[in-house]
Amino acid sequence: MRQSHFFVQTLREVPAEAEVPSHRLMLRAGMIRQVVSGVYSYLPLGYRVLRKIEAIVREEMDRAGAQEVLLPAVQPASLWQESGRWDDYGKELLRFEDRHERMLVLGPTHEEVITDLVRTEVRSYRQLPVTLYQIQTKFRDEVRPRFGVMRAREFIMKDAYSFDVDEEGLDRSYRAMYQAYEQIFRRCGLEFRVVQADPGAIGGEGGSHEFMVLSEVGEDTILVCPACDYAANVELASGKVAGEDGRRSVSEKERFLTPGAKTIEELRDRYGLDPETIIKVLVYRVDDRPVAVAIRGNDEVNEVKLKRLLGARRVELADEETVRALTGTGFGSVGPMNLNMPLVVDDAVASMPEGVAGGNEPDVHYRHVVPGRDFNWDSRGDIRTARAGDRCVRCGAPLEEYRGIEVGHVFKLGTKYSEALSASFLDERGVQRPVIMGCYGIGVSRLIAAAVEQHHDDKGIMWPMPIAPFHVHVLPVNLKDAAQRDAAEQLYTRLENAGIEVLLDDRDERPGVKFNDADLMGIPIQLIVGKRISEGLVEMKRRKTGEVTLLSPDEAVRAAVEAVRSV
Amino acid sequence: MRQSHFFVQTLREVPAEAEVPSHRLMLRAGMIRQVVSGVYSYLPLGYRVLRKIEAIVREEMDRAGAQEVLLPAVQPASLWQESGRWDDYGKELLRFEDRHERMLVLGPTHEEVITDLVRTEVRSYRQLPVTLYQIQTKFRDEVRPRFGVMRAREFIMKDAYSFDVDEEGLDRSYRAMYQAYEQIFRRCGLEFRVVQADPGAIGGEGGSHEFMVLSEVGEDTILVCPACDYAANVELASGKVAGEDGRRSVSEKERFLTPGAKTIEELRDRYGLDPETIIKVLVYRVDDRPVAVAIRGNDEVNEVKLKRLLGARRVELADEETVRALTGTGFGSVGPMNLNMPLVVDDAVASMPEGVAGGNEPDVHYRHVVPGRDFNWDSRGDIRTARAGDRCVRCGAPLEEYRGIEVGHVFKLGTKYSEALSASFLDERGVQRPVIMGCYGIGVSRLIAAAVEQHHDDKGIMWPMPIAPFHVHVLPVNLKDAAQRDAAEQLYTRLENAGIEVLLDDRDERPGVKFNDADLMGIPIQLIVGKRISEGLVEMKRRKTGEVTLLSPDEAVRAAVEAVRSV
Repeated sequence: MRQSHFFVQTLREVPAEAEVPSHRLMLRAGMIRQVVSGVYSYLPLGYRVLRKIEAIVREEMDRAGAQEVLLPAVQPASLWQESGRWDDYGKELLRFEDRHERMLVLGPTHEEVITDLVRTEVRSYRQLPVTLYQIQTKFRDEVRPRFGVMRAREFIMKDAYSFDVDEEGLDRSYRAMYQAYEQIFRRCGLEFRVVQADPGAIGGEGGSHEFMVLSEVGEDTILVCPACDYAANVELASGKVAGEDGRRSVSEKERFLTPGAKTIEELRDRYGLDPETIIKVLVYRVDDRPVAVAIRGNDEVNEVKLKRLLGARRVELADEETVRALTGTGFGSVGPMNLNMPLVVDDAVASMPEGVAGGNEPDVHYRHVVPGRDFNWDSRGDIRTARAGDRCVRCGAPLEEYRGIEVGHVFKLGTKYSEALSASFLDERGVQRPVIMGCYGIGVSRLIAAAVEQHHDDKGIMWPMPIAPFHVHVLPVNLKDAAQRDAAEQLYTRLENAGIEVLLDDRDERPGVKFNDADLMGIPIQLIVGKRISEGLVEMKRRKTGEVTLLSPDEAVRAAVEAVRSV
Repeated sequence: MRQSHFFVQTLREVPAEAEVPSHRLMLRAGMIRQVVSGVYSYLPLGYRVLRKIEAIVREEMDRAGAQEVLLPAVQPASLWQESGRWDDYGKELLRFEDRHERMLVLGPTHEEVITDLVRTEVRSYRQLPVTLYQIQTKFRDEVRPRFGVMRAREFIMKDAYSFDVDEEGLDRSYRAMYQAYEQIFRRCGLEFRVVQADPGAIGGEGGSHEFMVLSEVGEDTILVCPACDYAANVELASGKVAGEDGRRSVSEKERFLTPGAKTIEELRDRYGLDPETIIKVLVYRVDDRPVAVAIRGNDEVNEVKLKRLLGARRVELADEETVRALTGTGFGSVGPMNLNMPLVVDDAVASMPEGVAGGNEPDVHYRHVVPGRDFNWDSRGDIRTARAGDRCVRCGAPLEEYRGIEVGHVFKLGTKYSEALSASFLDERGVQRPVIMGCYGIGVSRLIAAAVEQHHDDKGIMWPMPIAPFHVHVLPVNLKDAAQRDAAEQLYTRLENAGIEVLLDDRDERPGVKFNDADLMGIPIQLIVGKRISEGLVEMKRRKTGEVTLLSPDEAVRAAVEAVRSV
């Protein structure tokens, strides 16, 4: 491709709206342009990268035995009502009416549509297992789209769905997708971690993993054990923090006054209490019933875990008025004793030898409060948010914390959708049974942003070869010099004939402009044709390392072909 | 691909809702399934065909120098308001609000989005010409979706847009797309005609052609000259019918009574009048003003032509009450004389020596009414619908009529969108000028249906090789016969290794079921492995011709490879 004809305009200015490097660089390099909040056009440079990633995804899906389909973006509301997600999904599900006043949605995901398809097509165990996938445009009406294509409203996703006769089949299908995902992200040149994850709105109880590209700008926090293979999204990560149950204090509980202290910080600063020894009690509305939740003063309630522990659909903090009506006191002195509502305690609280707790009257706390002696609970479990320094639940090593960009997510759905939509098959004995499902997503467009986050410097992008928009950027320094121009043209032609994707900067621009644009666009190999062509030499620069080699044009062609082929 | 694992279910029953062969066969072969009215899922068999067509389209677009982009499905209403189509487009434009109550549309086409892109990216004539294209999902809220993917609401389109500095540039870009289209449809194995067309809702005044696949079930009527290259959609086709202007009758006009005759048929049947000699006058509302329109009694008003002649946005027939108020009489005796509203006459009327016309009083007509003597007009032109038997306007040969499926449409837009959205560039002399645009669409998903319409028989589909879902169907007649099974497996492996796409029917089904399914699915070459494998022979059947050859497996592999490669 000749750059003079290529539809790409680099920007020198850093766009004000772009907060993260990938968004800035994708805009500056001319890969994408915003059409409306969270909705982008892909320009030729960006689209080439998208197609490369799609091709890798497709190859690995096919290799794993998945079959490609194409489901529609527009879906009938009725399927979402059947699955129950019409009510559960919230405002990210964009709903609208057609001209005949039928309710439709723009698909944020396709469990309903694919389950509907399978229930009409599959009758017998002989047709199973099968895994279907598509690469397709989705829409989620994010309340705050940001970071360019990383959290867009319209985006491209690869979603796959597996259908099996039993759990062992699901395990096999899940493993095949899991391995294909590792292979995809490796081939895209990404450093990633697989972590245990919360199934969220997709649902299913059989297990779930996220594929996280490690990056400072990632919106997810993950906890990783450096000693074993434990890794989990903070939404459900566990960390050991406290001693064993059983060692209990023998001191009697003791009332004391704490005027003016409504927060853990105030109790610490004014009364010298260690937050780790405080039993903090919060009142939640759980599916509209009040529930008290006890955690340590230095911990945070993890609402995802709380929801799972209680099997709840919705949990939210109660307001102070509600708290006062229920406990007789406001925020700051609520405690676990003598409550007239269910109490849920975190494992770390349950195993405290003793603690300081609110007295359920204003400005009153108690010391030497012993869990199990001074108060009991209706439910206990791991409901705190784990953090760096907690001990690994598997091996005890201190956990480390990273930020990650979720680029893939696999779920064991089980029968959540097949039961709701009656997708069943006849087994070998003629018994009707629901199909066992898994689902598997990759944010194809988000992958581009994740790759840029991991592969850039202050000058621009540094594409890994397998997903680079072009392999080689040929840069004649001075087009008016016939020797330079001719040598560049020859390199261009020879490389293209060898099947290499080449961008030839045949623009009549100053060398500085060309070099800056080339570094910004980030094509892996730059072949710079300058004055030393008179000695029969061109410069080959590796964008990633900055390494420059002087080569003859013949050698340069050979080296470039080798660099491309070796990937 | 082994058919036992392939996600495809053929249907023996003809689906009741399918009115045309392509719809019936695509459903029966398991290519598509409806999700909601006019919205389909593509199953693996259908998706493979879609991908083949996409690949051909992409190759020819790239060869023609177009660059691929990807624009979003969701578009802001503001762009449509800017272009004026927010008001003009009607209910096919699906409009909805997002969670922040911003109006959006599901893109039925992308002139606005691409013009918006170009106005921000293009500054100088040096950046032009450029042609951008995409293969993308569109939505048009058709009032009556039908014929499966032929007239769907959600569909896949290749749309391209060219941007030039002047009309000569547009001519070049237009020609390049036109030729690429011919090449695409030829490669897809389609018999088609290119016809002059009405630009419709896309607009532009510079000319427009449609690519019509000839088919009985086509929704368009086209008129074709067998002697020269004239061909046009009936929406704007011209046909010569009448004599020269100038030969006028000298008889005085003569009043006569026609009680009980309100229609041309009644005038013919009761009073022996030849419809060709009757001057029929209809009253239209043209952009809400009344206009009388005169055509011959045996002709129909072509509202597309009428709109163009009058430069109107909307034309519709007035109701009888309005007609009575304006003319003093009801339907059946309205005439061209003494009207108190503008009169438009068709060329065929204007050149009549004399005619019979209504008298604008109930049950009264006049004979010997001479155009230009007994009445005059405000406007004249070709506003009748041409038909088979009319004389070609170029060479005089009688026109022939065909039905066509519109699979491609090219438009010279000129500056319609660039002026509305201020997409301009600086020319060589530093003068700001609007870019000159063309746009070019192919109904990629509709092409599948069109191909099936042209390539089927009563047993099923007969795919042209370049767009076939697989090249070869290997059919072991009896799987329990080890010799047959092994020979089939070997053929499968050898063909796949040779790069041929093979479907192996390894299902344990009766031979009749296998043969019927194979004929239904329409893979071009069937290799049938039956009893004669004991003599070292297999049958090679060409689906299209039904021709069967007995070959050794070696010869069969060679013949299949050759048949695939020779395309």
